[in-house]
Amino acid sequence: MALARSPLAPLAIQILPPLAGARLAAANSGIRYKGRDDLLLIELAPGSAIAGVFTRSLTRSAPVDWCRASLKGGKARAILVNAGNANAFTGKAGMEAVRRSAGATAAILECKPQEVFVASTGVIGQPLDWGKIADCLPALVRGLNGDGWDQAAAAIMTTDTFAKIATRTARIGSATVRLNGIAKGSGMIAPDMATMLAFIVTDADLPAAVLQKLLRAAAVQSFNCATVDGDTSTSDTLLLAATRRAKNPRVASATDKRLAEFAVVLNELARDLAVQVVKDGEGAEKFVTIAVAGAASDAAARRIALAIANSPLVKTAIAGQDANWGRIVMAVGKSGERADRDKLKIAIGGVTVALKGAVAPGYDETPVSKHMKGREIDIKVDVGIGRGKATVWTCDLTHGYISINGDYRS
Amino acid sequence: MALARSPLAPLAIQILPPLAGARLAAANSGIRYKGRDDLLLIELAPGSAIAGVFTRSLTRSAPVDWCRASLKGGKARAILVNAGNANAFTGKAGMEAVRRSAGATAAILECKPQEVFVASTGVIGQPLDWGKIADCLPALVRGLNGDGWDQAAAAIMTTDTFAKIATRTARIGSATVRLNGIAKGSGMIAPDMATMLAFIVTDADLPAAVLQKLLRAAAVQSFNCATVDGDTSTSDTLLLAATRRAKNPRVASATDKRLAEFAVVLNELARDLAVQVVKDGEGAEKFVTIAVAGAASDAAARRIALAIANSPLVKTAIAGQDANWGRIVMAVGKSGERADRDKLKIAIGGVTVALKGAVAPGYDETPVSKHMKGREIDIKVDVGIGRGKATVWTCDLTHGYISINGDYRS
Repeated sequence: MALARSPLAPLAIQILPPLAGARLAAANSGIRYKGRDDLLLIELAPGSAIAGVFTRSLTRSAPVDWCRASLKGGKARAILVNAGNANAFTGKAGMEAVRRSAGATAAILECKPQEVFVASTGVIGQPLDWGKIADCLPALVRGLNGDGWDQAAAAIMTTDTFAKIATRTARIGSATVRLNGIAKGSGMIAPDMATMLAFIVTDADLPAAVLQKLLRAAAVQSFNCATVDGDTSTSDTLLLAATRRAKNPRVASATDKRLAEFAVVLNELARDLAVQVVKDGEGAEKFVTIAVAGAASDAAARRIALAIANSPLVKTAIAGQDANWGRIVMAVGKSGERADRDKLKIAIGGVTVALKGAVAPGYDETPVSKHMKGREIDIKVDVGIGRGKATVWTCDLTHGYISINGDYRS
Repeated sequence: MALARSPLAPLAIQILPPLAGARLAAANSGIRYKGRDDLLLIELAPGSAIAGVFTRSLTRSAPVDWCRASLKGGKARAILVNAGNANAFTGKAGMEAVRRSAGATAAILECKPQEVFVASTGVIGQPLDWGKIADCLPALVRGLNGDGWDQAAAAIMTTDTFAKIATRTARIGSATVRLNGIAKGSGMIAPDMATMLAFIVTDADLPAAVLQKLLRAAAVQSFNCATVDGDTSTSDTLLLAATRRAKNPRVASATDKRLAEFAVVLNELARDLAVQVVKDGEGAEKFVTIAVAGAASDAAARRIALAIANSPLVKTAIAGQDANWGRIVMAVGKSGERADRDKLKIAIGGVTVALKGAVAPGYDETPVSKHMKGREIDIKVDVGIGRGKATVWTCDLTHGYISINGDYRS
C-alpha cells in the first residue's frame, strides 16, 4: 500500500551531518517489505553510554524486555532495528529471536550481546524470522558509514509517509557537541512513554546515569505529549546514546549548570521529533495543539488535554473544518477531572468562543471557521479553577486513518 | 444529511402496544429540523412515579440539572424531549429555557413544573429557543394518544438511522404488567451513565424508591456496557416512569421476591435498547461483543473490555474485516489493569487465536477471517489472573463515522 506523503510533512529537506563515533547502515531483510530497507544497524564507538525510556504497556514486546534489562549495564555498541514485525506477543520464540539477533551482532562487533540494543516495529503477534536478520548482518557491518542518517530514518518506517530526522548542536563548557535523532511513528501513538521508536545519538562525553535523567525529562515534555489515536504501542522505545567522542568537560550530575544548554537542546530535539510523528499521524490533514490552563494540577490539565485530543468527535470535527466547540466542552466534561462548567473558557485560533458556561457574547464564527480551514489548529482551554497547565499535540481523524488501519495487514 | 439505515438495524418491525396511563404526541418545532418531528411529549397519569440515571459529565446540560433536582419529588406527569439542540453549555439561558418549557407544560397539564421531566439532544452550545417549544404545546396536548410509541421514538432521533423501541411484559404477583421503552443514540456514546436518551414506561404500581434501585441496576448491565466512540454525552438521560395503573400487589422493596421477574425483564429491555443504540452507532457496519474474563476484578475486566472496545486500531481492523488480534493484545496492554502477557488467551468467533503469550499452536486464520466478514463479531479475552469478568458492546470504526461527524453541523 503506497501512502501519499503527509500534507503536514516538513517542507525543508534536512540532511543530518555525520556524528563522531556513530556509523550506520540499512538493508532489506525480506522479513516483510520488498524493495525498501527495513533493517537498520547503528554502530556506536567502544565506550559509548546509553539511556532508554520504554512503553508502559503490560503486553510489551520482547525487544523492550531485552533493552530494559540491558540498560543496567549502561553501555552500548550497537542499535539494531527492524520494521514490519514488532516481535511482540511472540512468546519464548520472541525473546529467542532477540537473543539470537543481538548475539550475532555482538559476535561480529566483538562486544557483549547486552551491548546490542534491539527494537522492532510492525505487526504484533507474528514470529520474527531472526535468521533473515542474521543473514544481513555481515553486509550491514561492511556498509557502515557516517553519512547514513537519512537512509536510517527511512529504514525504520512502517506506515510513516516521511522519514523523521532532527539535528542540533549544544555547548558543554567550551566544547560544541552534536545531537542527531531519528524517529518513526504514525499510528498506535499515545503518551505513556515514548509512543514510537526514536533514537538520539550524541557525541557528548556523558555517563549513562546523566543521560538517563536528561532523557526521562525530555520524554515527559515531548513524546509524552503526542497522541494520534490514544493507542499505546507494545514497542515504544526511546534511546539516547552518547559516543563520548567530544572533548567536553566531564560532568557527573544531570543538574550540573554546564549541562543546562544541552538539556534545553535535547528537549527541543525530542519535541521536534515528537511533533514530526504527530504530523505524520495516520491520515492526518491537520496538526492540532491543545493547551489547557487553569486546571487543578499539571497532571489534571494533561488528562483534560488528552481527553480533548483523543476524542473521536473532536478529531472528526477538526477533519471536517467544523468549529464545533461544543465537542470540546463534552471532552472536558468526560475527562473526569475537576472542572466547573460555568468557569470554562475556550479559544480556537486565538478567538474566545466560550466563556462562563455559554457561548462568548457577540461570538462571530467567521474568523474561527477560517482558522479551521488551516493546516495548524490551535485550541486553548482555561478550566478556571487552578494553576495546572499542559500542552499536547494531536492530529485530526480522517478517512485516511480508516483506510490505512482497515487493511494494514492485507 | 440523509443517512442510510444501519445494516445492523432489526429486521422485524415491532409495534409497541398502548400502555395504561401513558399518552404520547410528537410534533415539528422548527428548532432545527424541517419536515420531521423533533419534539415529543409523554403524558403520564396523575400519581405516576419516576426514577432516573444521568450522565456523570461535569459539563452536563441544563435539562440534566433540572431532572436531577426534580427527581427528589419522585413524581412525574410528563416527559418533554426535543431533538436537534442539546441545550448544553448554554449558561443561565439554558436553565431558563428548561424552566419555561417545563412551566408551560405544567400549566396546561395542571401539575407542578417539577413533575415535568425535560431532555434535549443535539448540538452543544447553541441557545435553545424555548418559545418554539411552547408554541407547539397546545397542539401536542390535544394530539396525545396511547398509540404514539413509534412516532415518539422517531421524534427524538438525531443521527440515528432507525427508531429504537422495545416492549416486554412481566408478572408481579398475579398481575401482568407491561414495559415500553424508546431510546435514541448513535454517536457520543460511552458508558458512565445512560450514554443517550432512553425512556421506559411501565404500568406497574411501584414507588419511586423501588424504581430507582431497579433502574440503577439495569443501567449497569445495559447502557453502561455500550460504547460507540468512548465520548460521554453531556445529556445522557435514562428515565423509568411507572403509571401505577396495573393491579399488582404493593411492593415496598426492590429486593422483594415478587419483583424478581420484573427486574429481569427490565434488565432485558434495557439491554435490548442499549444493543440497538450500538447497532445504530454512527457508521457502524459490525456489532461487536467483547467478553473479558479472568481479570483481577469485575471492574478491571470492564476497563480492559472498554480499552479494547474504544481502541481506534481494534475498531478499524474490524471495519477492515482483518483478524488482526495483535491489536487486541495492544489494547489489553494499554488498559493499565493487571495482566500477564504470558497468560493471556484470546478467541475470535470461538477460535482461540492467542495463548500463553504467543499465537495459538497450529492457528489457522481461515475460520477467523470468515467470522470477521460477518455482521456480528465475537471477541473473548481471558486475562488468566483472576475471576473478574465483564461484557461490553461496541461497533466498528468506519468511513461512515468520519463522514457523519465531519459535517454534522453543516
